[in-house]
Amino acid sequence: MQRVKAIVSYDGTRFSGYQIQPGMRTVQLEIDKALVKMHKDKEIFSVASGRTDSGVHANGQVIHFDTPLNLPIDRWKLALNVLLPTDIRLVEVEYVSEDFHARYSATGKTYVYKWSYSEVHSPFERDFSVHLGRSHPDIELMKEAAAYLIGTHDFTSFCSSKTATSNKVRTVRMLTLEKKGDYLIMTIEGNGFLYNMVRSIAGMLLVVGNGWKTPADVKQILESCSRKANVKTAPAHGLYLDEVSYKD
Amino acid sequence: MQRVKAIVSYDGTRFSGYQIQPGMRTVQLEIDKALVKMHKDKEIFSVASGRTDSGVHANGQVIHFDTPLNLPIDRWKLALNVLLPTDIRLVEVEYVSEDFHARYSATGKTYVYKWSYSEVHSPFERDFSVHLGRSHPDIELMKEAAAYLIGTHDFTSFCSSKTATSNKVRTVRMLTLEKKGDYLIMTIEGNGFLYNMVRSIAGMLLVVGNGWKTPADVKQILESCSRKANVKTAPAHGLYLDEVSYKD
Repeated sequence: MQRVKAIVSYDGTRFSGYQIQPGMRTVQLEIDKALVKMHKDKEIFSVASGRTDSGVHANGQVIHFDTPLNLPIDRWKLALNVLLPTDIRLVEVEYVSEDFHARYSATGKTYVYKWSYSEVHSPFERDFSVHLGRSHPDIELMKEAAAYLIGTHDFTSFCSSKTATSNKVRTVRMLTLEKKGDYLIMTIEGNGFLYNMVRSIAGMLLVVGNGWKTPADVKQILESCSRKANVKTAPAHGLYLDEVSYKD
Repeated sequence: MQRVKAIVSYDGTRFSGYQIQPGMRTVQLEIDKALVKMHKDKEIFSVASGRTDSGVHANGQVIHFDTPLNLPIDRWKLALNVLLPTDIRLVEVEYVSEDFHARYSATGKTYVYKWSYSEVHSPFERDFSVHLGRSHPDIELMKEAAAYLIGTHDFTSFCSSKTATSNKVRTVRMLTLEKKGDYLIMTIEGNGFLYNMVRSIAGMLLVVGNGWKTPADVKQILESCSRKANVKTAPAHGLYLDEVSYKD
């Protein structure tokens, strides 16, 4: 058996999220179906770095799986991409040692959130960024609020009430906001994220950018460690799992 | 009554083409439904510069309609965009005189065809360009072949056998090929195009670029004025109606 690591990109629009759920079209289901076909109906299961929600995209999701097939590494990408639907693509594939685990070996994740400033939201962009419409958020205020979130904190106020994990302490190592052409881009990197945490942070920062809350409010909401602040989550289709990092 | 001209952009992926067909989701149906809603169930019909096929996109389709509503021109765009599905957007709207006709006043059309050179076709690009895969077409050969098509010719060899028009003479005023980032872009401008003509030309030029036919073959096929050459049409999802031009 050999362990294969793959970097996977997908358009989340037509998936009910990453994880297998009965009767739903999910990314994991399609990947595992392709693996089973490649292995002539032998059951092979992939393991991902984590789930993504319905509508959330990925540039760099990471999976691993174990295979008895001894193929030249280049063949894996070509063969699986032929079997996968076109809204999922393997971008890079490599053989790794058996102690590599897509989830447990991950040391960090980077997410990107995209808003569009365009006057009319292009039909070609509708599923891939969130239209700001007539609002022109103040990026300096957003950066000021973001500064409070960087570091190690209990992020209870910034996760879904459905979060199962009891330990809600996470470390945000980087959180930037920048204007790039017609887009406002939030990039966040950390050691791990709670359920809906990135979308809650994006939602909160936009609220600050629009002047409905102050950066000081964000500090206070963070410190309250409570879902009572009722932070709105930003829409799924602006969010991308951009990269998963591993040691070396 | 006032006549309104609008420039319309749409993602053709989930439409059965432009023109209304019973039981199908078409661009025209959605536009006319929005117009009827705006006019409180009074029937208002739009007229477009022409049809596009299923899967074909538009950056700059042009329509007109007549309305008894006397709205400030900016309101039209906002109000209709709220009523339209997000895969259709009005990009520009203006009042025009009654002698403007989206179809009969058009003096020319520009289409763009997009191929992608990327090693793996991004899931976010899958419906918006045609993947070249492992082929690396010779652009100079394609340009040489294109030169034979510029000018006024009988394009019988480059249209669908379903073309209804008997006069198959059209003028191609411009036909360019260029590499732009990861894309190979064909831009074609002419006084009008036969059914499947742009996709036939794109298909033919790629065949030449791949070395399966020579530029001289293209000249001969054009001059044969016959569908027997069996020119393959390039896929719909690489094609964009980019612009419709009018006098002044």
